[in-house]
Amino acid sequence: MKKALEKFKLILAEVDDLDRASSVLGWDQEAYMPKGGAEARGQILGTLGRLSHDRFVSKETGKLLEELEAQVAELDPDSDDARLIKVCRRLYDKEIKVPSAMVSEKAEITSLATQAWQEARAESDFRKFEPHLEKVLDWTRRYAELFAPYDHIYDTLLDGYEPGMKTSDVQEIFGGIRPKQVELIKAISEKDQVDDSCLFRSFPEKDQFAFGREVISAYGFNWDRGREDKTTHPFSTNLGFGDQRITVRVNEDFFNTYLFAALHETGHALYEQGVPKSLARTPLYGGTSLAVHESQSRMWENQVGRSLPFWKHFYGNLQERFPEQLGNVNVDEFYKGINKVSPSFIRVEADEATYNLHIMLRMELEIALMTGEVTVKDLPQAWNERFNDYLGITPANDAEGVLQDIHWSFGLMGYFSTYALGNLVSAQLWEVIEKQIPDIESKIANGEFAPLLEWLIENIHQHGGKFEPQELVERITGSQINGDAYIRYLNKKFKDIYGL
Amino acid sequence: MKKALEKFKLILAEVDDLDRASSVLGWDQEAYMPKGGAEARGQILGTLGRLSHDRFVSKETGKLLEELEAQVAELDPDSDDARLIKVCRRLYDKEIKVPSAMVSEKAEITSLATQAWQEARAESDFRKFEPHLEKVLDWTRRYAELFAPYDHIYDTLLDGYEPGMKTSDVQEIFGGIRPKQVELIKAISEKDQVDDSCLFRSFPEKDQFAFGREVISAYGFNWDRGREDKTTHPFSTNLGFGDQRITVRVNEDFFNTYLFAALHETGHALYEQGVPKSLARTPLYGGTSLAVHESQSRMWENQVGRSLPFWKHFYGNLQERFPEQLGNVNVDEFYKGINKVSPSFIRVEADEATYNLHIMLRMELEIALMTGEVTVKDLPQAWNERFNDYLGITPANDAEGVLQDIHWSFGLMGYFSTYALGNLVSAQLWEVIEKQIPDIESKIANGEFAPLLEWLIENIHQHGGKFEPQELVERITGSQINGDAYIRYLNKKFKDIYGL
Repeated sequence: MKKALEKFKLILAEVDDLDRASSVLGWDQEAYMPKGGAEARGQILGTLGRLSHDRFVSKETGKLLEELEAQVAELDPDSDDARLIKVCRRLYDKEIKVPSAMVSEKAEITSLATQAWQEARAESDFRKFEPHLEKVLDWTRRYAELFAPYDHIYDTLLDGYEPGMKTSDVQEIFGGIRPKQVELIKAISEKDQVDDSCLFRSFPEKDQFAFGREVISAYGFNWDRGREDKTTHPFSTNLGFGDQRITVRVNEDFFNTYLFAALHETGHALYEQGVPKSLARTPLYGGTSLAVHESQSRMWENQVGRSLPFWKHFYGNLQERFPEQLGNVNVDEFYKGINKVSPSFIRVEADEATYNLHIMLRMELEIALMTGEVTVKDLPQAWNERFNDYLGITPANDAEGVLQDIHWSFGLMGYFSTYALGNLVSAQLWEVIEKQIPDIESKIANGEFAPLLEWLIENIHQHGGKFEPQELVERITGSQINGDAYIRYLNKKFKDIYGL
Repeated sequence: MKKALEKFKLILAEVDDLDRASSVLGWDQEAYMPKGGAEARGQILGTLGRLSHDRFVSKETGKLLEELEAQVAELDPDSDDARLIKVCRRLYDKEIKVPSAMVSEKAEITSLATQAWQEARAESDFRKFEPHLEKVLDWTRRYAELFAPYDHIYDTLLDGYEPGMKTSDVQEIFGGIRPKQVELIKAISEKDQVDDSCLFRSFPEKDQFAFGREVISAYGFNWDRGREDKTTHPFSTNLGFGDQRITVRVNEDFFNTYLFAALHETGHALYEQGVPKSLARTPLYGGTSLAVHESQSRMWENQVGRSLPFWKHFYGNLQERFPEQLGNVNVDEFYKGINKVSPSFIRVEADEATYNLHIMLRMELEIALMTGEVTVKDLPQAWNERFNDYLGITPANDAEGVLQDIHWSFGLMGYFSTYALGNLVSAQLWEVIEKQIPDIESKIANGEFAPLLEWLIENIHQHGGKFEPQELVERITGSQINGDAYIRYLNKKFKDIYGL
């Protein structure tokens, strides 16, 4: 078995090397690439994607996998190797259905689409993105059909990001929390509103970065093994063991834009930095699913970064950096400001009470696109109408509406729901953390983040992709992913802030 | 033939995609990668290099190449396709001798060596680089032995950068110019020395960048198809059609460091930007050899950027940006200052009269390392002794001595001589340009650089790698590469400046 495993891991390493190379090229494309490079970049990414795919679904891989499965009973079922074989089987059975030409086709389509999206967004002109989105959608439909018969055409897409979850599962969870969130938002809207005008003063970029860097460091981000850059859309990406990038954007006229994105992406990055080197160059190296990944980013952004204890620790520092802007604002006012609940256009800047509605809207539109109920041409209108239904406001232009997210240009359909699921998981985990680290609030108020990070490494990060998300969440919390804890979290937090 | 050519070009495109991916990763490694990423980056580059190599030397490539050669008589021998087949044969016969394991080994060795070099240079500690250079040298010796029997062990290395040139050819050329350069330097040293103290005032980085960007733009660099970043060692790299990067370094206390490196790298970049898209994704896409490449960078840096007409055009602009530093310095003084001849430690900042001596020293040391006459351990001492012999000064530390160049860490042995050859070619070309664009000086004095760029595109850039360097230089100048024009150029230039 040892020899087969070694051979198998050599293949996985080659596949992973190709995929990480693509990640470097993808990161560069967002952070630095001149626009003239888009076509060539698409071709290169197409080649890398195709080679990685072909290697992974090669006959040799399939044969080794069978050989290893025949002997896997020798291993502890929770061992890295046993789990690796299991995960590879799931990935293999899925990937082998996809023709290699479709893989490079996707890379080329999405590379150009990403470039077009950037221009379209900058000019707030959906029409520039429309033909590219048509291609992405067409590809995605063809992809989903490879997995027919299915319960729902959207299932395969979802499963790519959240292994084991069905469209109907997510619809049920969302159906359960939606009325409760709507009820909360309504209750809040009937109370005195929070004054967040202090967040809209002028905050010079370099001072924002300096403060952000201090918080990111305090969280435990290892700068020798990562860096921070600016992109149109913030993200976090792993470029190989020891190289974790986060990207952010800055708005000098609105405080939240940079900092909470930075804390969010740091949450993702800490997850990746916590996965052990022993899993590197295998499919287990990284987070187990996007919802679990998002639980980490949202926890460091919200449960920690938007909490009163956090600001009791950091607010003096912030005031010193921005004496004119915040000198006359006390910590309670500031805390309420950054937690103001108010329907808004940009998902990544949405408050915690309305955020999931942004997600539900996207998931529904994606399903409608996939089933043909909504066409790409009509998408901006469908977006705006639904947005008004859900949040009572209508985007003034495409940039703050349908063009705000980069995901579709990447071909990431089926992805959005994991953001809301991540919120739910973060709250489920937080209830356990509060029991296991009873003084977590006072630790945060003292600027001690190591106990939390250690808990997360111990319970989540160190496992990489060994356990499927439902299994992992159940191991830790005793339940599968559900919305109860999140609703409790929201109700408690906003009861305090709005005196409900 | 059409079908075979199409199949052949698909393979070449895949190989080129892999190589450009490596270039993106290499660029990032220098410009942005955190140090923790070095090991993984080396592994990824190793995989990409091996896959590219294996694909290029595959049986399929060999068969197609034979098939195409049998029919090449159908084609115009100067056509892109006929030249492509010829160049691929040369590369194929060379690459097929190299075992695939050696290719990935090199990538891994040099990726770690580069990281080590950066740290060693920052700390001026050769011992940190020594074990890595040992590995690079060991690899390089094994590589050279693959091509035995040879006239000289260094021939294969040289041929990798300067196709068709032998060690003995270069030694003969260098032997011819060395006494003439030494004589010139001596004559200059006996004259009144130039005052260049104005260059050592304080020049804020952002103002240097703003001025540089203006000149780079005036030269014709297309920013939609390229960008400029900071690295420890300046370079220019092509990341695919439409994506040409230059990198620079800045010294706020010495004016020359940034600007002339920027103009130099722009010269390389203009060459790459001038190669037509029709050659993209083939081995013809790019410069034909490093000497010809260097002729372009040195021309834009020196014949143009260090000329009096250039500064007659730009000096007012520069004075406006740096009124305190340069307000009391007139253009003639400034021109003399930037052309001051004085033995110095850093090659890339050396004046034109002494520059080639830096190169000869490196080539001799490389040959001595290859033959075993000098060991890696003794290299710093050998460097310092030879430096003193040639230039009459001794580096105070490794950073300004043996550690100054990044090349060996990349495994680029046999490369340095092309820098001096490039100087020679730039002068050979310039004599033709002066005949064919008789008012070139007044054009430059008017800030009109397009005629020069058009001439270079027409005569050099548009051909990419179609013609071997000696053939190309002979087509344009009527002679092969030689030192006569360069010596004439130096003597004339410094006669004016020093009143020889």
